[in-house]
Amino acid sequence: MSEHRPNTEGKYKWIGTRPERPDGADKVTGRARFGADFSLPGQLIGKVLRSPHAHAVIKSIDTSKALALNGVKAVITAQDFPDQPNLIVPTGEMQVNMRDITRNIMAREKALYEGHPVAAVAAVSEAIAKQALSLIKVDYEVLPHVIDVAEAMKPDAPILHDHLLTEGANPPASKPSNIAKRIEFKKGDAKAGFAQAQVVIEKDYTTQAVHQGYIEPHATLASAAEDGQIQVWSTTQGHFQVRGFCARLLGLETSQIRVTPTEIGGGFGGKTVVYLEPLAMRLSQKSGKPVKMTMAREDVFRASGPAPGGNVKVKIGAMRDGRIVAAECIVEMQAGAFPGSPVGPACMCSFACYDIDNVYIEGFDVVSNRPKVAAYRAPGAPISAWAVESTLDILAQELDMDPIDLRLKNAAKEGTKTAYGVTFNTIGMVETLEAIRDSEHYKSPVKPGYGRGVAAGFWFNIGADSSAASHVGEDGSVTVISGNPDIGGSRASLALMAAEELGVDYNKVRPIIADTASIGFNFVTGGSRVTFATGLAVVNSVRDMIRELKVRAAKIWKIDPEAVIWEGGMAKPAGNQVGTFEPLSLADLAAQAGRTGGPINGHAQLNVTGAGPGFGVHCVDLKVDEDTGCVHVGRYTAAQDVGTAIHPSYVEGQLQGGAVQGIGWALNEEYIYNAKGKLDNPGFLDYRMPVASDLPKIETILVEVPNPQHPYGVRGVGEVPIIPPIAAVGNAVARATGVRMVDLPMSPPRLSEALDAARPMKMAAE
Amino acid sequence: MSEHRPNTEGKYKWIGTRPERPDGADKVTGRARFGADFSLPGQLIGKVLRSPHAHAVIKSIDTSKALALNGVKAVITAQDFPDQPNLIVPTGEMQVNMRDITRNIMAREKALYEGHPVAAVAAVSEAIAKQALSLIKVDYEVLPHVIDVAEAMKPDAPILHDHLLTEGANPPASKPSNIAKRIEFKKGDAKAGFAQAQVVIEKDYTTQAVHQGYIEPHATLASAAEDGQIQVWSTTQGHFQVRGFCARLLGLETSQIRVTPTEIGGGFGGKTVVYLEPLAMRLSQKSGKPVKMTMAREDVFRASGPAPGGNVKVKIGAMRDGRIVAAECIVEMQAGAFPGSPVGPACMCSFACYDIDNVYIEGFDVVSNRPKVAAYRAPGAPISAWAVESTLDILAQELDMDPIDLRLKNAAKEGTKTAYGVTFNTIGMVETLEAIRDSEHYKSPVKPGYGRGVAAGFWFNIGADSSAASHVGEDGSVTVISGNPDIGGSRASLALMAAEELGVDYNKVRPIIADTASIGFNFVTGGSRVTFATGLAVVNSVRDMIRELKVRAAKIWKIDPEAVIWEGGMAKPAGNQVGTFEPLSLADLAAQAGRTGGPINGHAQLNVTGAGPGFGVHCVDLKVDEDTGCVHVGRYTAAQDVGTAIHPSYVEGQLQGGAVQGIGWALNEEYIYNAKGKLDNPGFLDYRMPVASDLPKIETILVEVPNPQHPYGVRGVGEVPIIPPIAAVGNAVARATGVRMVDLPMSPPRLSEALDAARPMKMAAE
Repeated sequence: MSEHRPNTEGKYKWIGTRPERPDGADKVTGRARFGADFSLPGQLIGKVLRSPHAHAVIKSIDTSKALALNGVKAVITAQDFPDQPNLIVPTGEMQVNMRDITRNIMAREKALYEGHPVAAVAAVSEAIAKQALSLIKVDYEVLPHVIDVAEAMKPDAPILHDHLLTEGANPPASKPSNIAKRIEFKKGDAKAGFAQAQVVIEKDYTTQAVHQGYIEPHATLASAAEDGQIQVWSTTQGHFQVRGFCARLLGLETSQIRVTPTEIGGGFGGKTVVYLEPLAMRLSQKSGKPVKMTMAREDVFRASGPAPGGNVKVKIGAMRDGRIVAAECIVEMQAGAFPGSPVGPACMCSFACYDIDNVYIEGFDVVSNRPKVAAYRAPGAPISAWAVESTLDILAQELDMDPIDLRLKNAAKEGTKTAYGVTFNTIGMVETLEAIRDSEHYKSPVKPGYGRGVAAGFWFNIGADSSAASHVGEDGSVTVISGNPDIGGSRASLALMAAEELGVDYNKVRPIIADTASIGFNFVTGGSRVTFATGLAVVNSVRDMIRELKVRAAKIWKIDPEAVIWEGGMAKPAGNQVGTFEPLSLADLAAQAGRTGGPINGHAQLNVTGAGPGFGVHCVDLKVDEDTGCVHVGRYTAAQDVGTAIHPSYVEGQLQGGAVQGIGWALNEEYIYNAKGKLDNPGFLDYRMPVASDLPKIETILVEVPNPQHPYGVRGVGEVPIIPPIAAVGNAVARATGVRMVDLPMSPPRLSEALDAARPMKMAAE
Repeated sequence: MSEHRPNTEGKYKWIGTRPERPDGADKVTGRARFGADFSLPGQLIGKVLRSPHAHAVIKSIDTSKALALNGVKAVITAQDFPDQPNLIVPTGEMQVNMRDITRNIMAREKALYEGHPVAAVAAVSEAIAKQALSLIKVDYEVLPHVIDVAEAMKPDAPILHDHLLTEGANPPASKPSNIAKRIEFKKGDAKAGFAQAQVVIEKDYTTQAVHQGYIEPHATLASAAEDGQIQVWSTTQGHFQVRGFCARLLGLETSQIRVTPTEIGGGFGGKTVVYLEPLAMRLSQKSGKPVKMTMAREDVFRASGPAPGGNVKVKIGAMRDGRIVAAECIVEMQAGAFPGSPVGPACMCSFACYDIDNVYIEGFDVVSNRPKVAAYRAPGAPISAWAVESTLDILAQELDMDPIDLRLKNAAKEGTKTAYGVTFNTIGMVETLEAIRDSEHYKSPVKPGYGRGVAAGFWFNIGADSSAASHVGEDGSVTVISGNPDIGGSRASLALMAAEELGVDYNKVRPIIADTASIGFNFVTGGSRVTFATGLAVVNSVRDMIRELKVRAAKIWKIDPEAVIWEGGMAKPAGNQVGTFEPLSLADLAAQAGRTGGPINGHAQLNVTGAGPGFGVHCVDLKVDEDTGCVHVGRYTAAQDVGTAIHPSYVEGQLQGGAVQGIGWALNEEYIYNAKGKLDNPGFLDYRMPVASDLPKIETILVEVPNPQHPYGVRGVGEVPIIPPIAAVGNAVARATGVRMVDLPMSPPRLSEALDAARPMKMAAE
């Protein structure tokens, strides 16, 4: 692994090192407890009855036989949840429509997708719970359904929601539609730009829904007490969001719900919403017993949120020298059964890698009879980037330019204003392109039979609300508390920053992820915010503690606190007091804490702004088996503007994991619905994700361009690496075979079909 | 229940009310999880091999056969723990000798009492663990033992610790002794005082060791990871103390140990030290599996710390008008096998109810072959009070004075300086005596055959280190975090103070007891400190939150934070801004927290000083069955200076519980050792505690004299009520029968023997 560290080399003692992760021993020995590992005495097993239809009116539900079955302790339907207003409300600091959420966790008037929950039971055993499900009678009136986005947008498509009028329609919408929303971003005058362009490339692309592929299915355990208090264990990326959503869904106060996040076996965005939690809570309330619920893999596929598929039209106009003068992108995106696709970020990210004067971007959020989509690393961005970066590759070929040079010529830099309105501070797009250009990989010749593709990607990253605390034990060891589930090594990165700030050994700092009752609010683990935003809260909490440590030293020395400095983990007299007293270590001060004023703790809570955007450039060499259409990836390098790599191994891991997920998205992954609107491949045998043997070692280049708005220069790193791979692979396929793929996935059947179509001459000649 | 509330009536909205306790539903429905209710997958069962001898050299321990037994995963002895220095070190903010602690949890050179642990095993089942214990061969050399304090103090007594020289001996000690320490307190000139006295009463008293009688035996679960991190669940009054002690005993850092306190089924001081926790932790480290350990009731009696017995000599000199002019008290107290009896507080409290010019107090801490004593409500004080208050009753009889009048004549008040050096601030000794004097009970005639006894008691109460936090959820409901196990209703009292301070409904405030990793340091639940000291931390954390809430309101209104006041749960514009804006509720501000700066939390951590001393006066009417010596308690009233009664029901409960425990101590409870130094009554069948049918309803009078050093006037209330009952009962027995008992317990055999001895005439006449 190579690292570009011009800005951080030698600057830090702990930051940038690669110590063992705090949760490492637990994870490798099996001691770590994941969602399904929690149990309580007397617990029941909860099971969900799911719609077999893609679209159907629920005329009635008869649960009487299920309730009468011996061992069944509770049955619930939508009637067990209060209805919610049809408006966007802040919930767990997310802006969501609770009317839709309550209908997604339990179908109310209609079942809107195969797998949509219609009832749930809690029983003393799984066998009895399953039997009870078979005794529930649902009277459905099956309706025509629609799966595809383009179909769903047609005026005569089956309508999912009679109340849904297109928001942002121009002219304003007057009748129900599956188009929930239209958005647009404009910069300059795209029309004029295209008129000025010497070369214009225009192309349509499609992508399919893909799953985040987390290993651990959803699981939860809920225990409700008679006084309204409920304890919940859940595998989630946001236990404060679970608390917030469930409080609204059940009509409780947030302080009545205590959510403890379990270890999480992957989430990638898919565990930022609630599915089982409110059901388990209501079943626990009705039965008076703890209720445990887990999803089978098929449930995860059929009824939890995948990343959407979409259709993207891209048009790019450039001058012959490669300067892009106009760009346009139209994104139509699946939302699933309820509004809320990531079409916004898809549009924002589409051209953000480049400094282009004239841009027009339009997006559509479209409902259809599929599970409501959820977040998946850099939500939406891989879809628009696939289209934009493929089109740029066509442009480079058209102009006969090196694809890196084309991108360098147009690269965004400090001061570039994006189409969505933000002007960039210090960013590393140019440095990242140069890192690939200068890499041994890119400089090496392409092997015979192989094609080389490059592509870039952008994610804005986010900040938002974080709370943290730091406590010194009586022996001077330190506990750092925050409230974000660790999905990518954040325990290590938070502990490293705390150790650096405090000047103590990393191994003296224990990072803790506290439950919702034990730490202040923390926004969800997502958007690549934890090391950045919660990291800032941790740093600030340590600074608060250092302020107090100086006060204590001053008290012991009977001098002014202003005359104390903190250096190398020690309080030292400064100014005109230099040398008057022996320095006091953290352990010295901790031992005297009681006598000098009590426990020594530090705290911070803030809404963190100043997130540093991230840029990635990936390069792949691959060849295509002409007979089978099977792609062999020979070499892969991911470079990224990572700000400061706090724990480089985990940053590299993020790049590698994102690249692999992007390669899977490019080559094989897709949701396949049959004519009845049912998912034909709800399992890992038929839904093909890349495995280790499919791939080379993913090489990484960490380009450190510190974020000036963070004390340690942190940028989010988790989203960007899934964005470039799809187009990088497509561009390499095009250069290896001469065939430009525009529909995902580039799976063997599709690719071989495209290859066959492209070589009539050759075949005829044989 | 009557309440004297001249100082608080109508002053508060929530304080002084009696809402449901936050843990009520959990406790009455069985959902609350106590020490033995925690389990982990794959856990082993740990068992302890205990010494059958009261005093024996451990020549060797052969564990090989036990280790070879199928299913045994680990065996430990003292060799598995590092030795510790023989000096007093602060541990979990307690000052203890770790050399002794490590020898108490596991005998090293010698077994010092019957039941002393000598080895422990962890096995896959309890049956195998028990079998393994039988396979451990210990080669003992039995030594002469000593049980009784007076015997142990003799020059020729068997010596427990060859290194032990009496601290504070005068002249300095030159050879080993069982007297660990001598202390003294002096005020004025006792000798001169006695010379001046017109009446001098002198008497010797003895008391026996008694058990706290908690329902739940000790229990723990420990899970050690390969990287040194250990999680522990424990039924304890101080999880931070468990962490501190175990860190030293195992050579770990406090940050490596995370202790979660379970619900606690009684402690009363007996769960402030460690027994099983370090053994379970070491067994878990050695076996690589979680280890669960519980004590049987016999283990609790034989090997956990009871309250000591002791011998007390009291001499009081007074003038004929009842004015006490000199007082002397000599206390010899059992420490058990290692130094550390509560002789200090016994001495401090002995005469602290009274304003006496000339006082001499001397105390001796004496080791003998019994389990090391532990705290039990107002440690030591009931023993000296029994002697002092009995002697005062003799004096009242001698002077023919009403016993309340005698005490009122000498009562301590604001400005009184105690023999141990403290000068009282505002206290309620006089008010409490008056409350009994003016009570319906005391004014009612004593029924024929009954005797009425009164006695007083004093406890200084403590403050010490507490940390607390307050968090507002996004809906405006509040969580209040602290770190003291709730042994007497402190969740309710903390929530009441938070609701009062914040001006919101009590039911909107959820009090949480966080584990050692989730909140800053909190000293043990004991000394009647939690509602006082942790309460102050909670109040301060809420004030910190209100400060921030005002900042947020000011931000929304774009005015100066100084122009915002907090009133009735609302931010309101004040000063020249009055009426310019609509008030903002907590919920309003919470909903906008993200936009106004992030999560809204408050914090406080401090070493709390200013504890308000407490005084109790009890009155009992009882009769004695002349044939059996059995005492029937007819009526009992406990009055106490409780500061402000935050939740009066729990304060009353403290008074009632303390009275009942004191009655048991007076009448029946005692440890009975046989000639071999073995405990003959290690169970509740033979160790007789009072049950409901033994007792009348205990009446209470809450005398509210607020502590001026606490924002809500809180004084500790949990210790005082166990102090007066013993002497009150003894005084009533004396007045009912004419027989003055000086040895505890006043059990039927002893009492009938004393009655028989006192009536030779009557018997002869029959």
